[in-house]
Amino acid sequence: MFAFELLCIGNELLSGRTVNTNAQWVSQKITEAGGCVIRITIVRDDIDEIALIVKESLTRKPSWLIISGGLGPTYDDKTLQGVGMSLGMELVLDKRAVEMLRKSYSRNLVNYDELNEIRLKMAKIPVGSIPIQNPVGTAPAVLVETAETKIICLPGVPKEMEAIFSESILPEIKKNTGDFHITESNYEIISVTEAMLAPILNKIVESNRPDSIYLKTHPRGYTTDNKPRLGVQIVSRGSNKSEVETRYNNISSMMVEEILRLGGKIL
Amino acid sequence: MFAFELLCIGNELLSGRTVNTNAQWVSQKITEAGGCVIRITIVRDDIDEIALIVKESLTRKPSWLIISGGLGPTYDDKTLQGVGMSLGMELVLDKRAVEMLRKSYSRNLVNYDELNEIRLKMAKIPVGSIPIQNPVGTAPAVLVETAETKIICLPGVPKEMEAIFSESILPEIKKNTGDFHITESNYEIISVTEAMLAPILNKIVESNRPDSIYLKTHPRGYTTDNKPRLGVQIVSRGSNKSEVETRYNNISSMMVEEILRLGGKIL
Repeated sequence: MFAFELLCIGNELLSGRTVNTNAQWVSQKITEAGGCVIRITIVRDDIDEIALIVKESLTRKPSWLIISGGLGPTYDDKTLQGVGMSLGMELVLDKRAVEMLRKSYSRNLVNYDELNEIRLKMAKIPVGSIPIQNPVGTAPAVLVETAETKIICLPGVPKEMEAIFSESILPEIKKNTGDFHITESNYEIISVTEAMLAPILNKIVESNRPDSIYLKTHPRGYTTDNKPRLGVQIVSRGSNKSEVETRYNNISSMMVEEILRLGGKIL
Repeated sequence: MFAFELLCIGNELLSGRTVNTNAQWVSQKITEAGGCVIRITIVRDDIDEIALIVKESLTRKPSWLIISGGLGPTYDDKTLQGVGMSLGMELVLDKRAVEMLRKSYSRNLVNYDELNEIRLKMAKIPVGSIPIQNPVGTAPAVLVETAETKIICLPGVPKEMEAIFSESILPEIKKNTGDFHITESNYEIISVTEAMLAPILNKIVESNRPDSIYLKTHPRGYTTDNKPRLGVQIVSRGSNKSEVETRYNNISSMMVEEILRLGGKIL
């Protein structure tokens, strides 16, 4: 399994002020590319907490630990300190990162920003790590390669995070997943409940490898004439395209047959 | 500090299929009631993973651990098994929970569901725990009181989770936070950047207790004539209403003065 963990940093994600769309966006891209997100953690801008969670994550040896948020110039941007602490790496002013900041400022902010002490904070990165140009905003992303896990620190601003992830991380991921195929469909049905479909789901899940399929029912409440509504998601995935499709077709047929047998209607 | 942890369970949250609006909704209610969410974790429907995270969470001794998802009747609903395993509590068929299921079914599902073996799975709860009627759907919520932490398992369907949280958990939380006050405002400004405001933010944060204020700048890109846009959030909180308001007014004045001094414009 090509495993990923996400760590999202920011008080605004814990106070309910902000919906964590970053986690959803990154997870979707990883899933589509054939990777598997096994855990997402969200914590405050707190150096000790960040350091602890990075350390814990590394013991689980994911291929990638993707961190978002906390790279900016203000007092509550503490991600790199936390990552540095967890790995015993000091933060040093990195010349490449300074150049990247200069480039960012020359692009957007001629009238507002000069590269003073406060802004240079964004170029202080763990010694031995690699800065990556932010093509949209200012703070560079930072890549730290450990023995088993690549740690990438991305800005929390969605447009910046998405740009760097798409340009610099996703191609790397795709190199590793190689030829990956996924076939998915979603049915909306009425007059059949989750509990009624549970036996066939159990049967299908038991006879397939856990990472080759994903089957899920999503209760959607009731129609106006009090019939239960249900979403049914069928996913087949793997490296062999014809196997993926055959498996998808078999499962899909079994499900449709059972839904009709139970008196359900597919919308 | 009245600390909360959230644990959201479900593959659909890790595949990017579903945005985690539950976490945002619960966090907001807790914050408004005077509590503080210190960590949110999202994992798959995997008994060992769930058990491990519950165990880890209890070592941090939050007042509440709020778990959502994985209470339904299908093969991938494993939350109660995970919670039971982490605490060494067996799952037993609970008579009160069976009654609750009967009530739910008699309400909504007369034509579709009978209380068979598969549905009774939702009434198998850790021995010694307390089931709570689901007023909207079927699966009861489950409360487990440990020495330092109350663990509440809520359904993952948003309407069900919100109903049980509002009726049964929020009043309990408010009993503990008692007289809690919060004053908040959000400014939208132009022509001042995050980095320009960093020094005054540092100064204010250093001279106040960490849990009494929250100050944050949110970069919003640029106006059409290339001026930087910024959101500024000012929060004052605490148990003494007049102190909360005085602190808010002081901070707000200092911020506005500094923004204007720097040539910024408040929208």
